Amino acid sequence: MVQKYGGSSLADAESIRNVAGRIARSQQSGAQVVAVVSAMGDTTDRLIEMAERVAGSPDPRELDALLSTGELQSCTLVTMALHSMGCRAISLSGAQAGIRTDSRHRRARISVVEPKRITQELGSGKIVIVAGFQGITDELDVTTLERGGSDTTAVAVAAGLGAARCEIYTDVDGIYTANPRIVPDARKLDELGFEEMLELASYGAKFPPQAIEMALVYDVPILVASSYRDGPGTMIHKEPRMSMRVGQIRNRVRAIATDANVAKITARGLADRVGLQADIFGPLAEADVSVDVIVQNASIGGLTDLTFTVERTDLAAAMEVTEPVARNLGASQVTSSSDLAKVTVVGTGMQNVPGYASRMFRALAEAGIAIELISTSEIRITCVVREDRLTDAARALHRAFELDDSG
Amino acid sequence: MVQKYGGSSLADAESIRNVAGRIARSQQSGAQVVAVVSAMGDTTDRLIEMAERVAGSPDPRELDALLSTGELQSCTLVTMALHSMGCRAISLSGAQAGIRTDSRHRRARISVVEPKRITQELGSGKIVIVAGFQGITDELDVTTLERGGSDTTAVAVAAGLGAARCEIYTDVDGIYTANPRIVPDARKLDELGFEEMLELASYGAKFPPQAIEMALVYDVPILVASSYRDGPGTMIHKEPRMSMRVGQIRNRVRAIATDANVAKITARGLADRVGLQADIFGPLAEADVSVDVIVQNASIGGLTDLTFTVERTDLAAAMEVTEPVARNLGASQVTSSSDLAKVTVVGTGMQNVPGYASRMFRALAEAGIAIELISTSEIRITCVVREDRLTDAARALHRAFELDDSG
Repeated sequence: MVQKYGGSSLADAESIRNVAGRIARSQQSGAQVVAVVSAMGDTTDRLIEMAERVAGSPDPRELDALLSTGELQSCTLVTMALHSMGCRAISLSGAQAGIRTDSRHRRARISVVEPKRITQELGSGKIVIVAGFQGITDELDVTTLERGGSDTTAVAVAAGLGAARCEIYTDVDGIYTANPRIVPDARKLDELGFEEMLELASYGAKFPPQAIEMALVYDVPILVASSYRDGPGTMIHKEPRMSMRVGQIRNRVRAIATDANVAKITARGLADRVGLQADIFGPLAEADVSVDVIVQNASIGGLTDLTFTVERTDLAAAMEVTEPVARNLGASQVTSSSDLAKVTVVGTGMQNVPGYASRMFRALAEAGIAIELISTSEIRITCVVREDRLTDAARALHRAFELDDSG
Repeated sequence: MVQKYGGSSLADAESIRNVAGRIARSQQSGAQVVAVVSAMGDTTDRLIEMAERVAGSPDPRELDALLSTGELQSCTLVTMALHSMGCRAISLSGAQAGIRTDSRHRRARISVVEPKRITQELGSGKIVIVAGFQGITDELDVTTLERGGSDTTAVAVAAGLGAARCEIYTDVDGIYTANPRIVPDARKLDELGFEEMLELASYGAKFPPQAIEMALVYDVPILVASSYRDGPGTMIHKEPRMSMRVGQIRNRVRAIATDANVAKITARGLADRVGLQADIFGPLAEADVSVDVIVQNASIGGLTDLTFTVERTDLAAAMEVTEPVARNLGASQVTSSSDLAKVTVVGTGMQNVPGYASRMFRALAEAGIAIELISTSEIRITCVVREDRLTDAARALHRAFELDDSG
């Protein structure tokens, strides 16, 4: 069994002992246990702060080596706590656990898990505690994964070991139909499909998409549950059993995702020609700015407008890159606004059933909320709205799709 | 050039930048620079405290993995600071730097340094910052060396690279004829022999004997100097140039070492037979208690007394082991006292020149100081005295051997 415990569950000596107790009980139930742990509490933030105090903008390779110490500390401390409870246990760094990655520092991707040492220690009867969020390159340099990467470590280890599932213990007791802080009626979901979770993760839930992609590829079911209370949690897996009632079409909308960290940039009057988009978005990619929703107007008189959204924290960098490029391409105006948010409805198979999009637009219209941009995928419809209307939008959609009472 | 910076020189962001500045200047003088660093300030103590809070008496393997993070943090921070000063630099963990050790956790010995990666990074024009105090076993487990082990790392790296010397930068500006806090007239030595330093290190100076042994074996001169002020420091090497004056025999006593952390145990009335000592000291070795001075009285009527000293911090453990063993061997009485100290005069070749020992005993007698135990080596005479007379003893000997004014 592979488990993962997050940093908020490991904030101090007492909570470390609490987590160790939970791990010990899992083993007493007869299972072989591997637990992946994050750094204690706000350790990662404190290390970044220290690095910035010493060096301004620290080198990514060095920052990775520094940040990896947070998980090394927590995994050794959890292991010591297990020993003090009479359990046999051993800590493994990412390198020792065989977590190999590419060499993209600060956002490395796991290339392969070589679980030889884990298997060997499990075989000798030990609980194995693995430092999350980190791996090692072929050159034996330490890398860290994207933020939240300990979840990815856990799924990768579960996949590498062929574990039946991966249990993610966190400070919430599962995945909700919406953020309960925004929508008080939000309801915990018992189960969810990988693709649905992937959209939720990309559009607001605190869960690294990389972890879900990996779970999807290797078909590792993920249980998300509370590290404080016992409870069923939410099972994320390949084929969520449908709670289809006879004579009733199942509500395919599963959840509402919200994201307030949105800004948009609009370039007007661009000469519409082949390669325009590459010219605009190439430099943004080089500057490591992720672009989310992109909307291009129909061309009028050979000129077109292009609007796209970025994370609000990336807006300054994005404008710096985009403005000169767009001017070069003939733009008459480049504007930005940062008071935006995204609200997304997620559900598998929505696109095969007409009416979901119009139901969404109608609900927003009835609430008097203007839609600035729209983006859709097979299982998702996203509307960009003003940030000060995000709560209203989420609540209206949660009601409109009857998420507070459906099964 | 191999340098080493101690934890007190790396206490905060500002001192880290100060050390980085010194390293940068060393490179600007044209040298290839490898710098070994200790953990910042009291990091190691804080980590031990945390481990004890979580687990009481933590497992040595886990504690090693935990403690090693202190040096990983300081070496990446120094490297980042160098980058921010425009220098090319890279940090290497003990494992990356090729520091292989045996698997005696908490007190590992370096078996070999495989400096391939260091050489390669130096060759590409980088300053290399190495995490001190740590190594890796053949099973890829992290070990830590004895306390002060970063000095040992530095000497080992210097030996592995064939460096001309190893520079240890610390919070004092060299090795003194005595501890200046005890003997105000103490004078910095310009040079010192390895063997002399080894005795000083074993008998009071804060320097790991392992580092000096390694320097001796591989003939790596060590410069001890201040990390705050420029100054000549003390050079420790194979053949200290003699400051012999014509017509005058050189004063062979080089320094006075003092150590207040001494306790003694006496077992009286032991049956004197072959194997007695092994029976007494075997169990102590198994309990990891280091025994220092041992004195055994001439046997009278088949019975003998045995007295030995241990570090005061080991006294309780030593008594627990010794008392039942000694009683089994027929001891009529097992007593201990913990208010003792050692004062040692060190100098190469003393044993070939008569009169040094008697001069020591006379100086102590004239100061009214009782000698409890005596122990000698080729280059050292140690007297155990009451701790409350240690200062008087050190000052009397410093004067008697004219250490305050000789060259």
